[in-house]
Amino acid sequence: MTEKRTEINELGEFGLIDRISKTAELQNPESTLGIGDDAALVDAGDHYIVLSSDMLLEGIHFDLAYVPLQHLGYKAVAINVSDIAAMNAFPKQVMVNIGMSNRFSVEAVEAFYQGVKAACENFKVDLIGGDTNASGSGFVISVTAVGKAKKDRVVKRSGARDKDIICVTGDLGGAYLGLQVLEREKQVFLANPGMQPQLEKYDYIVGRQLRPKARMDIIHELAELGVVPTSMIDVSDGLGSELFHLSKGSGLGTQVFEDKLPLDQQTYDTGYELGIDATTAALNGGEDYELLFTIRQQDHEKLKLHADIHFIGHMQNIKEGNTMVTKGGNVIPIQAQGWDHYDTKRG
Amino acid sequence: MTEKRTEINELGEFGLIDRISKTAELQNPESTLGIGDDAALVDAGDHYIVLSSDMLLEGIHFDLAYVPLQHLGYKAVAINVSDIAAMNAFPKQVMVNIGMSNRFSVEAVEAFYQGVKAACENFKVDLIGGDTNASGSGFVISVTAVGKAKKDRVVKRSGARDKDIICVTGDLGGAYLGLQVLEREKQVFLANPGMQPQLEKYDYIVGRQLRPKARMDIIHELAELGVVPTSMIDVSDGLGSELFHLSKGSGLGTQVFEDKLPLDQQTYDTGYELGIDATTAALNGGEDYELLFTIRQQDHEKLKLHADIHFIGHMQNIKEGNTMVTKGGNVIPIQAQGWDHYDTKRG
Repeated sequence: MTEKRTEINELGEFGLIDRISKTAELQNPESTLGIGDDAALVDAGDHYIVLSSDMLLEGIHFDLAYVPLQHLGYKAVAINVSDIAAMNAFPKQVMVNIGMSNRFSVEAVEAFYQGVKAACENFKVDLIGGDTNASGSGFVISVTAVGKAKKDRVVKRSGARDKDIICVTGDLGGAYLGLQVLEREKQVFLANPGMQPQLEKYDYIVGRQLRPKARMDIIHELAELGVVPTSMIDVSDGLGSELFHLSKGSGLGTQVFEDKLPLDQQTYDTGYELGIDATTAALNGGEDYELLFTIRQQDHEKLKLHADIHFIGHMQNIKEGNTMVTKGGNVIPIQAQGWDHYDTKRG
Repeated sequence: MTEKRTEINELGEFGLIDRISKTAELQNPESTLGIGDDAALVDAGDHYIVLSSDMLLEGIHFDLAYVPLQHLGYKAVAINVSDIAAMNAFPKQVMVNIGMSNRFSVEAVEAFYQGVKAACENFKVDLIGGDTNASGSGFVISVTAVGKAKKDRVVKRSGARDKDIICVTGDLGGAYLGLQVLEREKQVFLANPGMQPQLEKYDYIVGRQLRPKARMDIIHELAELGVVPTSMIDVSDGLGSELFHLSKGSGLGTQVFEDKLPLDQQTYDTGYELGIDATTAALNGGEDYELLFTIRQQDHEKLKLHADIHFIGHMQNIKEGNTMVTKGGNVIPIQAQGWDHYDTKRG
């Protein structure tokens, strides 16, 4: 008798999460929403507590050859804040667990926490817990963010309706191309340690990779403008993958227009230089940490003058699938490649 | 000019936490209690949300040579539940993040989650989130537990008053000696892979190490008996270390009596066999996950018949420090050795 062995990459991360979440039944009445959205919801009476937790592992999610520890601390908090934002909620607290080997000094730990602290100040969250551990090998980070949402304003991945307008904030694909530049410079450095990295002309996209924003500004503005999105997700794995999540959550298809996708000039130029199509970077690159959401058509009026919200498409019948109208006018299916860490390591 | 480099083991974990928490000011009114207790408190209106987060790293906190994955999943949840219990609160949800390399199969991940699920059922908590990641090397776990506490029943490390009675649940030192037995059997196995481990006579203490309890039963009973401890902590780093935390938190000294310390017969016998003093194992061993708490003298009556709560000493003036009255009648100072992972690896 041999035991069955299924390789992890046969399933991938989403497959694993599906297998785990299927067995996770909720028994406490306070547990309003469990696995499967950007964050979980706990009923606290007149509001929801919103909870998100993510791990960042050296060699998988980041490379200390080009990520300064301070930026890493900032990013670890920001990406969890982004998950709270994606529920249309406001972050209030974070807990940060780290494991670090003895190759790091106390000053290194402090540099990391300076970044954590900078993010806490920027996003107005309190560092309320976490532990520090020795690690046998790499640097390991796990952050939990805690937020608060009004019950009538919380937004899930489900909830979009046919013909709702698909919106995305900021611009896409830059973080991925920024990572490609950092990788290239690392290889140059390894081949010739005397070379200094040439990053000036890539400052914007490198910044997108190292110091993601987490669009709390948008969440505040939506509240001020009286708009509640019908569905929302943050763009962590690439637009294509996130469109699939909204599609799956809402039981509808999505249609976006290539010429509406917001791309920075530096993203275009660097994509051209590196031979990577900028649209592909936007669809499959990931780590932009912008917000992708849907609104009712009648809310378009309230948002149409917003400089940083872009209307890229609309929900459609599920039979039509997830499609993109190319610049040439062709309708093509979107692939949900995303970044599956078991298949494709970032960087 | 040389940059200052301070080695992490010059400070140790507690030193690091102190340095970090000093810089963590709380700005949101909801953030009631931050770093420095078993769990943090978030004000949710008529109750507190209680939050604890802990990391477990392969090679530091556990050795897969003798820890079955199912037990590991159970323990990862239990030790966080224990932190919620230590606030006199009730656990409701957990989030579990893991990083696993490709040497693990999907079946291995599932075995781990079976343990997580068994703990969730046992402690009546819901698995509401978490992510699965590839790991470059070892197995990495980070669990966040979320609990709920009535505002007038929450208990911190601070709050003990002079002459309050010090209580501890269950028995101490067993988990540490169980670990020593597992380590010894591993060495025997490595020297002679044909040998089968001999663990029958150590079943209780090995169980203490592999499958800690988290004393939610005690929290329910204290509620039923109408007793609110004046201070509380769980015994994760050894009784000595926890007494220091209560002492520091409450601004008082502690006095315990060696002959009152609860020790199981197997702990005694194994300590004798291995040449480790059972009292030393109780004071410095750690991982018992029992509850250490103080009560007012007038509450003694309500608890005195409880079979699993032991009255081991009392709070005293801070000038008298933290002391133990030995079986021989000598008063000796207690050392807060605990388990500092930067100094001394477990196992």
